[in-house]
Amino acid sequence: MTNLTDFITYEDLAIGQKFTAGPQKVTEEDIIAFGKQYDPQDFHTDPVKAKDTVFGELVASGWHTACLAMRMIVQASPHMKGGMVGRAVENINWPLPVRPDDSLSLAVEITELRTSEKSPERGLMRTKNTVTNQNSEIVMEMDAIVFVPRRMA
Amino acid sequence: MTNLTDFITYEDLAIGQKFTAGPQKVTEEDIIAFGKQYDPQDFHTDPVKAKDTVFGELVASGWHTACLAMRMIVQASPHMKGGMVGRAVENINWPLPVRPDDSLSLAVEITELRTSEKSPERGLMRTKNTVTNQNSEIVMEMDAIVFVPRRMA
Repeated sequence: MTNLTDFITYEDLAIGQKFTAGPQKVTEEDIIAFGKQYDPQDFHTDPVKAKDTVFGELVASGWHTACLAMRMIVQASPHMKGGMVGRAVENINWPLPVRPDDSLSLAVEITELRTSEKSPERGLMRTKNTVTNQNSEIVMEMDAIVFVPRRMA
Repeated sequence: MTNLTDFITYEDLAIGQKFTAGPQKVTEEDIIAFGKQYDPQDFHTDPVKAKDTVFGELVASGWHTACLAMRMIVQASPHMKGGMVGRAVENINWPLPVRPDDSLSLAVEITELRTSEKSPERGLMRTKNTVTNQNSEIVMEMDAIVFVPRRMA
């Protein structure tokens, strides 16, 4: 297990490296605020009305979970600030809902690294990202393809 | 072009159906507020510091664009409230950045529909989602797999 803050440029990375971030607590207030702003459906905005929905309770928007994962990544990697730019994301899954007072953690593993002649100033890193709750249950998985600056000559 | 508000259940949907949502204006204030909360990197939070980053200017977090797309979908589909639940998302791409005062629109096309014996109360809809700016440039693409309630006997 390596601390992400050790990673400065593409040259410091290797396939198989893992790091973790969090925990990140999610409150009912957080869930409702996000829901009202970006995903205004009863199961994300109203604990009472949520009882009559498919979830039967208030749950976080899947996009909220994705955004919290992004915050954990950034907070865990101050030395990459200014340089970590998402190119694409693949295969986001939400196997279980996030509920009020859940505490989320993020595990990241580097699964691919590549450079291109077209953009010699940066490389591409593919990561497998797994968000779990306080019971170690997976609530979100995704593959992210991220630009990483290379050490310039 | 069909209005999404006409779609009530799985039985009303067909492959090839298209709908649109938006426009959704994005202000500098919106970009900074989202960036500070979920993606605190200089190019999303500080117009001055952003000049020294790879973007050279303030741009919206890609997750912000995804969240605005979700809001446009929900706002355009009041009759599906309580029933539109994301199962997964595949292949998010951000070919161009979103800038302050951009006006975003969403185009959705249904590309796959299926039911399962295991969950007879709902079907699955796959959609191709394209977000464009006021110049008709694509700023985000993604495939979403969404649960849709079926008409019960």
